[in-house]
Amino acid sequence: MQTKEENIVIIGSGNVAEALALALDKAGNPPIQIFARNRNEGTRIAARCQCKFTNDPAFIKPADLYIIAVSDKAIASVSGSINFGDAVVAHTSGCTPIDALSPNIINKAVLYPLQTFTKGYKVDFRTVPIMVEGTTPKALDTVTKTARMLSDNVLEVASKQRAMIHVAAVFASNFTNHMYAIGELLAKDAGMDFEVLKPLIRQTTEKALTADSPLSTQTGPAIRNDFQTKSRHCELLTEKPDLKNIYINLSKSIWETSKKTSQK
Amino acid sequence: MQTKEENIVIIGSGNVAEALALALDKAGNPPIQIFARNRNEGTRIAARCQCKFTNDPAFIKPADLYIIAVSDKAIASVSGSINFGDAVVAHTSGCTPIDALSPNIINKAVLYPLQTFTKGYKVDFRTVPIMVEGTTPKALDTVTKTARMLSDNVLEVASKQRAMIHVAAVFASNFTNHMYAIGELLAKDAGMDFEVLKPLIRQTTEKALTADSPLSTQTGPAIRNDFQTKSRHCELLTEKPDLKNIYINLSKSIWETSKKTSQK
Repeated sequence: MQTKEENIVIIGSGNVAEALALALDKAGNPPIQIFARNRNEGTRIAARCQCKFTNDPAFIKPADLYIIAVSDKAIASVSGSINFGDAVVAHTSGCTPIDALSPNIINKAVLYPLQTFTKGYKVDFRTVPIMVEGTTPKALDTVTKTARMLSDNVLEVASKQRAMIHVAAVFASNFTNHMYAIGELLAKDAGMDFEVLKPLIRQTTEKALTADSPLSTQTGPAIRNDFQTKSRHCELLTEKPDLKNIYINLSKSIWETSKKTSQK
Repeated sequence: MQTKEENIVIIGSGNVAEALALALDKAGNPPIQIFARNRNEGTRIAARCQCKFTNDPAFIKPADLYIIAVSDKAIASVSGSINFGDAVVAHTSGCTPIDALSPNIINKAVLYPLQTFTKGYKVDFRTVPIMVEGTTPKALDTVTKTARMLSDNVLEVASKQRAMIHVAAVFASNFTNHMYAIGELLAKDAGMDFEVLKPLIRQTTEKALTADSPLSTQTGPAIRNDFQTKSRHCELLTEKPDLKNIYINLSKSIWETSKKTSQK
């Protein structure tokens, strides 16, 4: 593996672009340039990692690696609108196939950090799994080297597996957050704040993360198939048919899952 | 408030009974006795907090407070099978009304710790919200005093509000754990372990717990109403119709919730 610095240009100014730029800076290899349409955000991010910024495609610098951290649907057009020569071009999307990058690109790659990025929240990048893929040895080598600068957990993962992990992440992260949001709405109906649920939430997550599997830490009326409690809960949700529907479906899913896994 | 010790008998030998017995012991006021049908479990718990055990109703000790920590459906029969005189009798259930306690009981109470208890996992009781209720001033005073020995967060909550908080807890805890379990199943389909999702899960929970509200930390394709990603995900779930159904319902709920709350 080479030890010289990589010349990296980051394309985009969203949360992933910012998180990657900062993590590269922290790893001692800041991007040489940010290219983004949004001048304010691009300038702000470039200032944070002391690199150049441009919003003019004519001024994009030559680099070893271009990381396209834009919205999934913009990947094809952005990657097709620039002549990257034989440089490596990586997108950062969980569920976009590697071949969504423009066919003009010779060395296609993916560098997908499996994490949720929100402005104002710090991320310890060294523990974040980064999934890499490349269409050529040069492409794979370059993203792997870059990913290893950022994280101790770099995995080579093909597009199809990566997409499945992305669905898994939607359940484990996006849907979990929505369960918290519904919890807050119901707590407010009972005249209480989200605060009252926090010790419970901490303990639930701590248990699932330290157990062999979250299957072994499932508690509540659904896993006991406790009809009386379930029917009391449904009564309380009468005026919230959408939540009642979710309650019934998830309770059923918990029960079915426990039957399936206990048969194994 | 009195400072003398309460004579407390715990009825039951499940996770809640054990957690309460240990927490009372830690607070310097161990139960004077455990009464339970299960001799092995009852003896084990009694030994852990150096108190007496009996499985014979004829030998239940006189006490100021009897805490009935049994399954919800056993509360009525257990509370009706013993003559408690004018002692205070509390159940510990989230969604059982206070009047599920036998009509023979003069001083009915509830002492509901809002937490998930699993054998082998320690709980910091001082942060656990304990919801109390009483049908008489004596009943309310006694459970409040006992709850304050255990926790810094004691709330007087009526049966109906408590039941609604219990539903909120099912979403925030039981359903969250199930989201983790589904995440694990899908990660395995991609050839990976639950381990790969852990940094994401930690960050998601940390964000939701430190934000003003989990409504402000929602991320993912559903909140962006990103049709392309949602349809790719549904395709990947084709052979798992139950999970696909959950995916569609929760995505819809996230979108509807965001519309409702942004209108406010």
